[in-house]
Amino acid sequence: MNHKKPLNMTMLCDFYELTMGNGYFKAGYKDRITHFDLFFRNVPDDGGYAIAAGLEQVVDYIQNLHFEPEDIEYLRGRGIFDEDFLRYLKEFKFTGDIYAIPEGTPVFPREPILTVRAPAIQAQLLETFLLLTINHQSLIATKANRIVRAARGRAVMEFGSRRAQGSGGAIDGARAAYIGGCTGTACTISDQLYGVPAGGTMAHAWVQTFQSQYEAFKTYCEIYPDNAVLLVDTYNTLKSGIPDAIRAFNDVLKPRGITKCGIRLDSGDMAYLTQTARKMLDDAGWPECKITVSNSLDEFIIQDLLIQGAQIDAFGVGERLITARSEPVFGGVYKLVAYEDEQGQVIPKIKLSENVAKITTPHFKRVFRLYDKVHGKAIGDWLCLHDEDVESNRGRDGSLTIFDPDATWKKKNLTDFTVRELQVPIFQKGQLVYSLPTLQEIQHYCQQQMDTLWEEVKRFDNPHNYYVDLSERLWETKYKLLTQNK
Amino acid sequence: MNHKKPLNMTMLCDFYELTMGNGYFKAGYKDRITHFDLFFRNVPDDGGYAIAAGLEQVVDYIQNLHFEPEDIEYLRGRGIFDEDFLRYLKEFKFTGDIYAIPEGTPVFPREPILTVRAPAIQAQLLETFLLLTINHQSLIATKANRIVRAARGRAVMEFGSRRAQGSGGAIDGARAAYIGGCTGTACTISDQLYGVPAGGTMAHAWVQTFQSQYEAFKTYCEIYPDNAVLLVDTYNTLKSGIPDAIRAFNDVLKPRGITKCGIRLDSGDMAYLTQTARKMLDDAGWPECKITVSNSLDEFIIQDLLIQGAQIDAFGVGERLITARSEPVFGGVYKLVAYEDEQGQVIPKIKLSENVAKITTPHFKRVFRLYDKVHGKAIGDWLCLHDEDVESNRGRDGSLTIFDPDATWKKKNLTDFTVRELQVPIFQKGQLVYSLPTLQEIQHYCQQQMDTLWEEVKRFDNPHNYYVDLSERLWETKYKLLTQNK
Repeated sequence: MNHKKPLNMTMLCDFYELTMGNGYFKAGYKDRITHFDLFFRNVPDDGGYAIAAGLEQVVDYIQNLHFEPEDIEYLRGRGIFDEDFLRYLKEFKFTGDIYAIPEGTPVFPREPILTVRAPAIQAQLLETFLLLTINHQSLIATKANRIVRAARGRAVMEFGSRRAQGSGGAIDGARAAYIGGCTGTACTISDQLYGVPAGGTMAHAWVQTFQSQYEAFKTYCEIYPDNAVLLVDTYNTLKSGIPDAIRAFNDVLKPRGITKCGIRLDSGDMAYLTQTARKMLDDAGWPECKITVSNSLDEFIIQDLLIQGAQIDAFGVGERLITARSEPVFGGVYKLVAYEDEQGQVIPKIKLSENVAKITTPHFKRVFRLYDKVHGKAIGDWLCLHDEDVESNRGRDGSLTIFDPDATWKKKNLTDFTVRELQVPIFQKGQLVYSLPTLQEIQHYCQQQMDTLWEEVKRFDNPHNYYVDLSERLWETKYKLLTQNK
Repeated sequence: MNHKKPLNMTMLCDFYELTMGNGYFKAGYKDRITHFDLFFRNVPDDGGYAIAAGLEQVVDYIQNLHFEPEDIEYLRGRGIFDEDFLRYLKEFKFTGDIYAIPEGTPVFPREPILTVRAPAIQAQLLETFLLLTINHQSLIATKANRIVRAARGRAVMEFGSRRAQGSGGAIDGARAAYIGGCTGTACTISDQLYGVPAGGTMAHAWVQTFQSQYEAFKTYCEIYPDNAVLLVDTYNTLKSGIPDAIRAFNDVLKPRGITKCGIRLDSGDMAYLTQTARKMLDDAGWPECKITVSNSLDEFIIQDLLIQGAQIDAFGVGERLITARSEPVFGGVYKLVAYEDEQGQVIPKIKLSENVAKITTPHFKRVFRLYDKVHGKAIGDWLCLHDEDVESNRGRDGSLTIFDPDATWKKKNLTDFTVRELQVPIFQKGQLVYSLPTLQEIQHYCQQQMDTLWEEVKRFDNPHNYYVDLSERLWETKYKLLTQNK
């Protein structure tokens, strides 16, 4: 996809959003206020948490939502849309409310990351782009966070643009990876657009273009003496790559008094090669030379390499991060949970299913996170109806009783806790009311929030199940609709 | 990613393309003509073939390649680029040659899908976008082709936008899926931009928004009598979904004499449900009602469902197609294979590696496909140097001897065969010389080309290995560079 002229993302919608829109219009449901929740059912990679991301691009999208004359023309050409509906689309803009959990927040299955309250046609039209954006960026932020945690404090750079699934996969993927904790990206335009620090030094082609590897290295050191990171595996890492690199460092950097430099390895056994390389560099008087590795890394390989004593200062992670290769789908869905009748009363709606996991939690809701006062760790999340909160649910002794919605006899009485509401207002009556944080702020906030999760929840394999409980009134509402069977 | 103004894809490059560009410039290698091959090493999903796709977007990209003043400003702000280089970038455009295998062609590991011959800085800069585009679209076209073949003539619609990895993942993914054989997409903008037929009817929200399921169905039939495809699993497929659908068909369509209609199932066991649904519809007098299914399908599930006698007329395939979930990376690489010296002589270059699979095939090459004259099937592909061809390699009896490059003693003598050169000129001296086929033509050509492959090559599991052989001179060139070890 290239962009000779601005792409109108309003048309990036499933066609059925438009056939339904036309249908709501003709059926007289144009102004019926509907409530939709965006949530997911399973954490990718069987992990214990996901990182919410993509809200800034959703805000951008909503603010630019409109149909161009050529869009209307295209739709008219399809021959199934009412002229009155097409006229309505000409004036179309978003006039509803959106609430969302801020980017960088750890989130859990079956809680609304984002809630839309808007006339049916509007709320419906948003579905595809909202899901696409939040699914994609949350997928990559979550994967990046796992990889960064495996690296235990070492820098992780996102290097995957060339294997990304399309331009947005690369550009927005680099942004999401930064939210998850990466220190930067190889993708230049992500720096220019979003301020994700872009870096990189040389490819094998650089080494091949010169008469000799030494000449390629020497030239590079002369041009970039302050950032001389040499790729040493074009021919033979230990026999010629590192010796040629040391010779170039000695010839060019040493006379200038420069001690900082680096090498990068992109093939071979990284545990063995980096330990040998480290010794060669130290013996040659280059202890500050950093070793960066790349080549099909992910959280599991990084974890193993470090256990095996690999001498690595930084990781460049490509295809397995930018496509979230081990589980490339974030399964967010967007479901109607309520509509409002003529009197403005909120009528909860449920979607049943043969697959129990696909049954929705109805109604217009609020989401709270409960923290233990003693150590500041998150106890669990708690959903309730829009007209209640934690205060209205406290017992006479000030405690809150929570229970597992799948096993209601499992109860827990909380006393010493603090409460934070997770969703914040983003749009009110179509107006942006949220002040977007900077990308650096989001990354920092994410790190802070991750520190409130128990290590057990953050395990890669078989993590502890984090609680997402329902208030008694919400549970009763759901149960009633379930048994009504319609 | 949203696009208030045109996104300049020139900046969608790895940062090292620019640091190397600046380096070539300063080292006096700006005008050195280099040759790069774009090829892949493994077929995704251990399949026997891949489908090349993405060339049209590469052409678009090359034609729009330029740096905007704000791009130069951004680069200047990084503080590492030479002013002379930045001045050079201001006037930058592509002046080289590009050869490529047309979109829709089945392609195989280690043959150049695309070859660039251009001054070093130019050829290098293209790397990221070319790889990203061809990797992404070839990945999806290949996956789509597998899924379409599993469906054995039934329609397969691409339904995955909401789970795509970013906007390009959805928009260009739908294009690639169409090349691979899908009949259409849910993604509206892919129809508008590329002419991929977009369709779709209703979501669960439509059913929930009405007072009753029957009312939702009846209203839909009234608005879209000619395309009434009703989603029957919002509450209970067999107990209420299909009965309400039949009632709506009877009440709205029958009086109008309409016999064509449809239902869609999105959950539950598709083998059992579709067989029961078929019987209910037939018994009610709706034998022409088509059954469409969706819900996490791929080639393996579709194959199994059909074996189990599922009564399905069409498939909607989402996340597992649009992300190629089982193997979401197409591992194309872009490697320097030669440069030209001052006299214009082509000097072959090799990239060695500890991983044997990562060793490149050097030199400026040509690619031929050999077909058996008797049944028209492809025998294998054959690579040779740029200054030879099949004719110049024929023996005195007119035969061509080919051999396995990994086991040179395995020889085959071909007599009754025809030859087709696979790469065609796309750009010559920066000018487009290729007439782009329409998307429909590409899809049709792909189907035609697939028919020239033996069924053994197209097996999902453990397919027969298709030959990609080297001419004797090419093999000798590679072997010489390998043993020279530099």
